[in-house]
Parts: sequence; structure tokens; C-alpha cells
Amino acid sequence: MMHTYRHSAPFELENGGVLQDLTIAYHTYGTLNADASNVVWVCHALTANSDVADWWPHTVEAGCFLDPDKWFVVCANIIGSHYGTTGPLSINPATGEPYYADFPLVSIRDMARAHSLLAAALGIGRMHALVGSSVGGFQALEWIAEEPARFDKLVLIATDAKASPWTIAIDETQRMAIRADAGYGQRRADAALDGMAAARAIGLLSYRGPGGYNRSQADAPGAAPAPGEHRACSYQRYQGEKLCRRFNAYSYVSILNSFDTHDIGRGRGGVEAALASIKAETIVTGISSDIIFTPAEMRLLADRIPGAVYAEIDSDFGHDGFLVEHARLNAILKPFIEKIRQ
Amino acid sequence: MMHTYRHSAPFELENGGVLQDLTIAYHTYGTLNADASNVVWVCHALTANSDVADWWPHTVEAGCFLDPDKWFVVCANIIGSHYGTTGPLSINPATGEPYYADFPLVSIRDMARAHSLLAAALGIGRMHALVGSSVGGFQALEWIAEEPARFDKLVLIATDAKASPWTIAIDETQRMAIRADAGYGQRRADAALDGMAAARAIGLLSYRGPGGYNRSQADAPGAAPAPGEHRACSYQRYQGEKLCRRFNAYSYVSILNSFDTHDIGRGRGGVEAALASIKAETIVTGISSDIIFTPAEMRLLADRIPGAVYAEIDSDFGHDGFLVEHARLNAILKPFIEKIRQ
Repeated sequence: MMHTYRHSAPFELENGGVLQDLTIAYHTYGTLNADASNVVWVCHALTANSDVADWWPHTVEAGCFLDPDKWFVVCANIIGSHYGTTGPLSINPATGEPYYADFPLVSIRDMARAHSLLAAALGIGRMHALVGSSVGGFQALEWIAEEPARFDKLVLIATDAKASPWTIAIDETQRMAIRADAGYGQRRADAALDGMAAARAIGLLSYRGPGGYNRSQADAPGAAPAPGEHRACSYQRYQGEKLCRRFNAYSYVSILNSFDTHDIGRGRGGVEAALASIKAETIVTGISSDIIFTPAEMRLLADRIPGAVYAEIDSDFGHDGFLVEHARLNAILKPFIEKIRQ
Repeated sequence: MMHTYRHSAPFELENGGVLQDLTIAYHTYGTLNADASNVVWVCHALTANSDVADWWPHTVEAGCFLDPDKWFVVCANIIGSHYGTTGPLSINPATGEPYYADFPLVSIRDMARAHSLLAAALGIGRMHALVGSSVGGFQALEWIAEEPARFDKLVLIATDAKASPWTIAIDETQRMAIRADAGYGQRRADAALDGMAAARAIGLLSYRGPGGYNRSQADAPGAAPAPGEHRACSYQRYQGEKLCRRFNAYSYVSILNSFDTHDIGRGRGGVEAALASIKAETIVTGISSDIIFTPAEMRLLADRIPGAVYAEIDSDFGHDGFLVEHARLNAILKPFIEKIRQ
């Protein structure tokens, strides 16, 4: 069930803006134990939401690494998103109308600070584990860099400490597609959906990569489809349309902007110093075919976090492997989360 | 200097359309020798043109593999393109107006047949070598599959015998970005330029890949640019705008459509049978970081062509390596082209 927390004070953003009203939507699974020692906080990625059990199949289940019989799992929707937390479709108290394109720039650091406020409101202090994949990992790294003593364990999956030029180029290309849609800028929730569909299709290319498409989107042998009628084409359009039914272009751009400015080294003496300050027991998990956060980058990330171990999932599904390969993920992460430090 | 050849009869297209007027723009470099035994025919890729010396630096030069002192190098602009050969901006004789989006579907096979017509018009029969990189390789494979005895040598660089689901997905995503621009469909040469710029940026992601961007588009150390102001963002926009100054969205879509329907196995008993029919001495060159035509696929292509050798260029520049790594390309291809079969 989705809950909402309404913050009682203005929320100042890192880049100078202020959210007069901050509402945070969140889900919890399982039961907080008496000494509040069983919290596992999950940070979600780009267009996901606080309902982890929905977007991350076979993780929040008995016997899985987010087993709700053992853990009190919490996930909060990120600022700028579409799923209940304050975002571009929220009412701007200054105008009485939705923000749309006027929503202020939100950093990943702001998102992490909102998580921290919610945790405090829930009476959660120190936590057993912090989990983040992709942009969720960005938040996890920001949060632990800010509050290194708060977490016993850190689980990072297919993520990075700073947005790379390659990932920023992918994001800018998505913004270009959205801006190519003349509807962008119109003050309506369904503005620029064609542009957002194209942006989503761009994202998908990067999420799946060559192996993912060649494995699952081949046409029937001997088929000679007309242009646009290949299976891979229908898939791109379908995924674009699917996102249009559940998201909005202003939130999409807001989160891309947060992505691009991600840098846990900002104001902390650089990425290496920030990573070196992490005290939690850490596992970094890469995916062999991930072309967004490549295995080489994931190994480097692990090398820079004191005592971190690196694990790699062998998968053809690229970055999306983190959503698809739940069996391999559970095999790696369940023992890591359950093991009590000696 | 660009020349043009005007075909005197209607040109029937594989998919049923007819071009009543077919004009082919082409370049030649060097001199045809007395026995016409020194022809090297180059097929160009996507948005390039017949001026090989312009788009492929340090290849059509003394001491390079397309040395004009030795070879009579020919390259023809492809049907559907923007550079002098009949395309969407040409006048449709049926209406007296440019075709724009009404330009008929052109296959890679049609492009190869146009090359063959031009060769005949130039008095060229058997050729020393046929060279194609990327979509140029598509044409080379189509042409040699149709006329296997016409070429002594075949040079394939970063290409494939059939469009893969992955490459088709990239193309559909580009079409989605173009269609998201409401200008697409307007009967003017500069329609949908914002969409085409986004499409170009998508293409670039696939041409350069992670290594290309991370190596050349990093921001200054310690910089904290606002969203959209990262170096990688300017690069994407700049490349998009650059294409808009020299190309049109209808040609862009026309060539993407040709790309997607590429399959040298069509009507020839499948890709493997078509490749097995190649009699020319063949070299297949892959690029280590190419995420469009991966080294594994290039090796497979070489395996399927009788006697073909495989060479790999180690480069961080992804698919664009074929344009950038001229020194390594010359080192591999000059001896291959110059060697006389014993």
C-alpha cells in the first residue's frame, strides 16, 4: 500500500530552488522489529516508483533477498517523479497551477535528503542495508556519502558515482527527442508524449543493448517485413506508448536532469575521496552485457570503496539484467544481506 | 569533381515502385588504365556522399589503400540520398513536385543495381576490388551476391549481410524521433529538422559507444555544469545541427528504410547460401568497440564467406572507428588490395 508523508517545512534544493510543499510517497513491506534493526531501504530508478514488489519481480518475496518476513523494506518515490512525490505535475503554491516545465532543478543529493527526512519521520535511525540499482544506486551513494555511519551494508547494482559523458549523451539525446515534439512546453500533463515515447525508445536501446534485441526481437525466419513492421520496431513503439500511459514528459526531463548532475564527489573532494569515506560492508554488482554501466566501470567502483566486493551477473539483457535476472540477483544478494558481520 | 549519369529508361524498384528518371551522382579518382583492370569501387554509408576523399580522410591519397596513382576509384551516391542521385527532394515526374515523403521504398538491392548500371555506362566490367563499410558494406554484399564473378576482391568493414534486430531497433527509434517532430510530412526540404537532429544524435550514440564518449567528451575536472551544459550535451546538439545544414529528413528516413530491409539472403536461399556463393578474395574488418556491428558478428560474417580472412582494429571509437582509424585501416587494407593473387 502506498503511504504519503508531508514535510512540514520548505525543502531547500541544492541548486537554489525551494519546494514549499514536499510530499513523499512511499511503500513499506514487512514489519519493523522492536529494535528497528531490520530496515532495508531500496532506492528506485528513473521511471519506477515506490512499489518495489511491482517493478522488481521476485525480490520482495519469501526466500528472496528483500524477504518481507525478515526485513522491513522501505522505498520512497523520488522528487520530480510521477508517482505521488512532489513533481512537475504538483501544484506550485506560488501560482496555484502545476509546475510543468517550471519545476525547479532537483539533484540526486536532494532526493537522498528527502529519503533521510522520511526515514526520520518513520523513526528509523541506523539501517541494516541500503540498496540501489541504476539511478537508485546514485541516490544510495549520495545518501551514504552524506551519512556514512547510518548503514551497515550497501548494495550497489549497475550504477555509478558520477554520470559519465556517455550516459549524459544518452540523456541529452532523449531531451532532444522530447524537444523535437512541439508540444513540449505546453501546460498540460500529456504534452510531448510522442517525444517522450521516442526518448523512452532511446533509453531502451541503452538498457537492452545488442544482445537483448538480437536474442528476443528477431523476425520469423524467412520473413521480409516492410520498414517499420519488423518485430524490433513494434517493440520500440510499444514500449514508448506504454510509458506514455503512465508517465509525463516533464517528470521524465526532470529526472534526466537530476541524472546528469549526479556526482558524489561534488563538495566532497572528488569521487574517489567520497567513495573512500564509505564504511558500510559493500557489494557492487555489475552485469556482463550492460552498456550503460559497463563491467569495467563497476569493477572500478568496487575498487574505490574500502573492502567492497564485486560480483558480476552473466546476462544477455544488458542493463535491464538487474530487473530480469532475479534468480542470479537473489543468489548473490540474499547471503550478502543476511550474513551478520562477525 | 562530381559527375552525373542519367539513366535513359525507367528504373524498376524491387518493391514495386518505378523511378521514371534516375540520375546517379558519382566521383572518380585516378585514371582508368588501358585494360580497365585497376577499378576499386567504394560504396558509401548512410549520410555520406560520392566524394570519398571528403568523408574518408587519408584513404584516397598516395600511399593509402585507395591510392589514386594506382587505382581508378569510383563511388556513387545512393538512391534516396541528398547528394545528386535521385531522392526524396527530386522532382516526381508524375506530379512535377518533389517526392518528399512519397518517395518510393528503395532497397539496398536497388542501390546495388544502380551501381551496376553506372559501371556499365562507364565501360567497367570486371573490377579489381569492391569496398564497403557500414551501409556501404550492405551494398557491396548485395552487388557481389548478384554478380559474383565481377569482382576479384571484396573489402567489408563494420557491416552485415542482414540488418539485425538491434540495428533495426536503432533505426525505428530514429524514425520515432523524426515523427515526433510535427513538421514531418510537410512538403518542404527543411521539414522536421529538429526530429532529424535528434535522430542523428541517436545514431551517434550507436556510432561512438561508451568508450568514444568517455574518452573525448568529459567535462573539465571539478566542473559542475547545469543540465544540458555538459560537453557531451553540446556535442550531441552540435552534431544534430551539423547534419541539418547538409541533409534532409526524407532522405534520412528513406535510407533508414533501405537499411532495415537489407537481407542478402532474400530470394537467394538465405544469408548463409548467399555468402557461400561469394568467390572474391575477401577481407572482413571489425572494430573492437563497435556496438552496431560487433566483433563477434563480424567474425561470423567472415566465417561464412569462403576463404575470407578476418582482421580487427583495436579502437575506442566504436563503429566510427572505420572513419577515424585510417592508419590502421591502411595498414590492413593496402597490402590486401595491392597483393596480386598467385
